[in-house]
Amino acid sequence: RTLRIGLIPGDGIGKEVIPAGRRILEALPASLGLKFEFVNLSAGFETFEQTGAALPDKTVAILKSECDGALFGAVSSPTHPVKGYSSPIVALRKKLDLYANVRPVKTVLGAAKAIDMVIVRENTEDLYVKEERTYETPEGKVAEAIKRISQRASSRIATIAGEIALRRQKIRAAGNPSIHKGPLVTITHKSNVLSQTDGLFRTTAREALADPRFSSVTVDEQIVDSMVYKLFRQPEAYDVIVAPNLYGDILSDGAAALVGSLGLVPSANVGEGFAIGEPCHGSAPDIMGQSIANPIATLRSAALMLEFLNEEEAAARIYAAVDANLSEGKLLSPDLGGTAKTEEVVADILRRL
Amino acid sequence: RTLRIGLIPGDGIGKEVIPAGRRILEALPASLGLKFEFVNLSAGFETFEQTGAALPDKTVAILKSECDGALFGAVSSPTHPVKGYSSPIVALRKKLDLYANVRPVKTVLGAAKAIDMVIVRENTEDLYVKEERTYETPEGKVAEAIKRISQRASSRIATIAGEIALRRQKIRAAGNPSIHKGPLVTITHKSNVLSQTDGLFRTTAREALADPRFSSVTVDEQIVDSMVYKLFRQPEAYDVIVAPNLYGDILSDGAAALVGSLGLVPSANVGEGFAIGEPCHGSAPDIMGQSIANPIATLRSAALMLEFLNEEEAAARIYAAVDANLSEGKLLSPDLGGTAKTEEVVADILRRL
Ligand SMILES: CC(C)[C@H](C(=O)O)[C@@H](O)C(=O)O
Ligand SMILES: CC(C)[C@H](C(=O)O)[C@@H](O)C(=O)O
Repeated sequence: RTLRIGLIPGDGIGKEVIPAGRRILEALPASLGLKFEFVNLSAGFETFEQTGAALPDKTVAILKSECDGALFGAVSSPTHPVKGYSSPIVALRKKLDLYANVRPVKTVLGAAKAIDMVIVRENTEDLYVKEERTYETPEGKVAEAIKRISQRASSRIATIAGEIALRRQKIRAAGNPSIHKGPLVTITHKSNVLSQTDGLFRTTAREALADPRFSSVTVDEQIVDSMVYKLFRQPEAYDVIVAPNLYGDILSDGAAALVGSLGLVPSANVGEGFAIGEPCHGSAPDIMGQSIANPIATLRSAALMLEFLNEEEAAARIYAAVDANLSEGKLLSPDLGGTAKTEEVVADILRRL
Repeated sequence: RTLRIGLIPGDGIGKEVIPAGRRILEALPASLGLKFEFVNLSAGFETFEQTGAALPDKTVAILKSECDGALFGAVSSPTHPVKGYSSPIVALRKKLDLYANVRPVKTVLGAAKAIDMVIVRENTEDLYVKEERTYETPEGKVAEAIKRISQRASSRIATIAGEIALRRQKIRAAGNPSIHKGPLVTITHKSNVLSQTDGLFRTTAREALADPRFSSVTVDEQIVDSMVYKLFRQPEAYDVIVAPNLYGDILSDGAAALVGSLGLVPSANVGEGFAIGEPCHGSAPDIMGQSIANPIATLRSAALMLEFLNEEEAAARIYAAVDANLSEGKLLSPDLGGTAKTEEVVADILRRL
C-alpha cells in the first residue's frame, strides 16, 4: 500500500520537526509493505504574510484530492491581532471535517506515575465556530461569541472515544502493562452552568456510549474545573477523556504538563478515512533555529496518523522506538533536561525502529 | 466597628464549615475593635427542594439591606438536570454585582515549591450569562450559548487585579518572604481563536493596567491552554493571574491541585463595599456528615472577606493562625493526610489566633 502524505511544516520549529516525521515514515521496515509519497504544502503566518492567506486553497484542495493523511507542524499566532489572519489549523480541521482531535498522554515505563490516558477532543464546533460580533453600548464595547454544541458532533465524538477505549483495552489485554481494570470513558462538561449546550453534550455522549457494543466500557463524568483538579491529583485514574473543543484544548495542555514536556505529546486530527498528525506544541519562536526542538511529539504524531489510517503495526514500531529512546534516557533534547540536538534524537530513534 | 455578616451554609459540608467561619470571627481579639453580628440565610439545593427557589428573594434582600459581608458554604449540583434549578452562587454573584472572584493559592513556608499566586476571576459575564437556546435541525438538536465579554467588566476586573498586585507587593515589601521581584499581572485569554471577545478582554485589560498608578506592575499574557501548562510546570513564576469567568473557574481549580487540596483554597466574591467569602471546594457529598471536612478554606475565606472590607489586620491574624497550624502539620484533616476532625482543626487554629 502506498500512502500519500501532505507535509505542512508551518512556522518556527514546525520546519524543524516535520522533516523528522517524514524520515521516520521513510525508515519503516520494508517488511511492513508500506510505501510513502510526500507532497509539500504551505500554511501558517509566514504563508499569510507572503500570500495573504494563512491556509491557501491549494493546500486544502491537494489534501482533499490527493492525500491519505498529513503531518502538520505548528503555526505562529501573532501577539497582536492581525487583520485577515486566522488560525489555519482551526480552519483545516473544519474544512476537512476532522471531527476528532486525539491526544494520548503517557509516561514511559518506570516513571514515577503510570499515566496513560487519551484526550478525545471534539474538533469542529463549540466556541471554535468563531461566530463573533461586537457592538457599542453607553457603557462601552461588548463582544459576543457563540458556543455551539450539536447532537451530531457530540454523538460521533463520544462514539470514537468509546472505540478508542475498546482498542486501548485490546492492546493492553495483548500484554501491555496497565493500571486500568477495564476501559473507561470520562465525559467532561460544565452542564451545572451550561445546562443546554454542555447538557446536550453530556446527554448525547451518554446515549452514544450506551450502545451495546460499548457494554464493557465504564462511563463516568466530571465537571471541567473538577476534571483539571483531578487530572493533577490522580492522573493514573483516567483512561479516555472526551470533551467539547475548548475544554479538550485546555485539558490536553494540562495533561502534557504531567509528562514533563509538551515536546512529547502528539495529536491526530481524525476524520472519515483521513488523519493529520500534529504535535501538541506550538511554533516555539524562543528556540527556533537552534536545532534543539524535541522531535518526539511529531514522531508520535506520525504514528498516531498511521493508527487512524489502519496501519497499527507500523504505528506500534514507532511508539516502541520512541519509548526505547526515552527509557534509556541518554539522548534527550533540552526540554527533557538533555543536551541532544533534534537530529541526534531522531537518529537514535531511527536506529531502534 | 460592627460588621453584620450573612451566613449561608448551603448543602453538604457547607453546613459543617460555615460554623467554623463564624467561630473564628467571634474569636478575633477584642483589641482589634471589631464586633460581629450574624444572620442565618438559606440557599442551595435543599432550599430549592423545600421552597422551589435555590436562592430565595429574602436571602438577597437581607444581604443587600442589612449585611456588610457574608460567608457562603457550598451547594450541591444535581447530577441530572432538575427543572427550575440553577446555581444560587452564580445568581448571587450577578444580583449583588460581585464582579471579582479572588482566589489566592499559596503554599506554606517550607513547602517544596514556593507558590504564592492569586487568581482574579471576572465574576459576572462570559458564558455565565447563561443565555442558551436549543433548536432542532434535520441532523438533530443544536444548542447555543452566548459568551459575552464587555469592556466595562474587563476593565474593572483588570483594575482590581492591578490593585491586588500592588497590595501584595506592599505586604511582601513589609517583610514577607517572596520569590517575586515585583508585582506581575498575567492576563489569560484565548484571543488567537476568539479575536473579538477574548480580544476585547485582552486589549481592555492591557489598557486598564497601563494606568500610571500601575507603572510598577509588570503586565504579561498567556493563552489559556498554555497558562494551564505553565501553571503546572512553573507555578512559582506567577503572582496575579486575571481571567474571564470560565477560564478563571478552571485555572483556580488547577491551582488548588498544586497546593495539595481544594480544602485549603479560599475565595472572595467582591463588589463595591461588599464581599462574600466562599471556600473553593464543593458540597462534597462523599464526606458529608463525617465531621472531617477541612475548615481551612472557609477560615481563609473569612479572612479574605475581611481584607476586602478593609480589615486587613484582622485578616492577617487569621492567615497567620492557619499557617501556623499547617506549618506544624500535626492537626490536619484527612484531605491533607491527617486524621483530625473539623472540630479539632478549628480548635487548634483558634488557640493560635
Ligand atoms: C493554535 C490554536 C488555535 C490551537 C487550538 O486552540 O486548537 C492549539 O492550541 C491546539 O491545541 O492545537
Ligand atoms: C458550582 C459552580 C457553578 C461554580 C462555578 O462554576 O463558578 C464553582 O465551580 C465555583 O468555582 O465556584
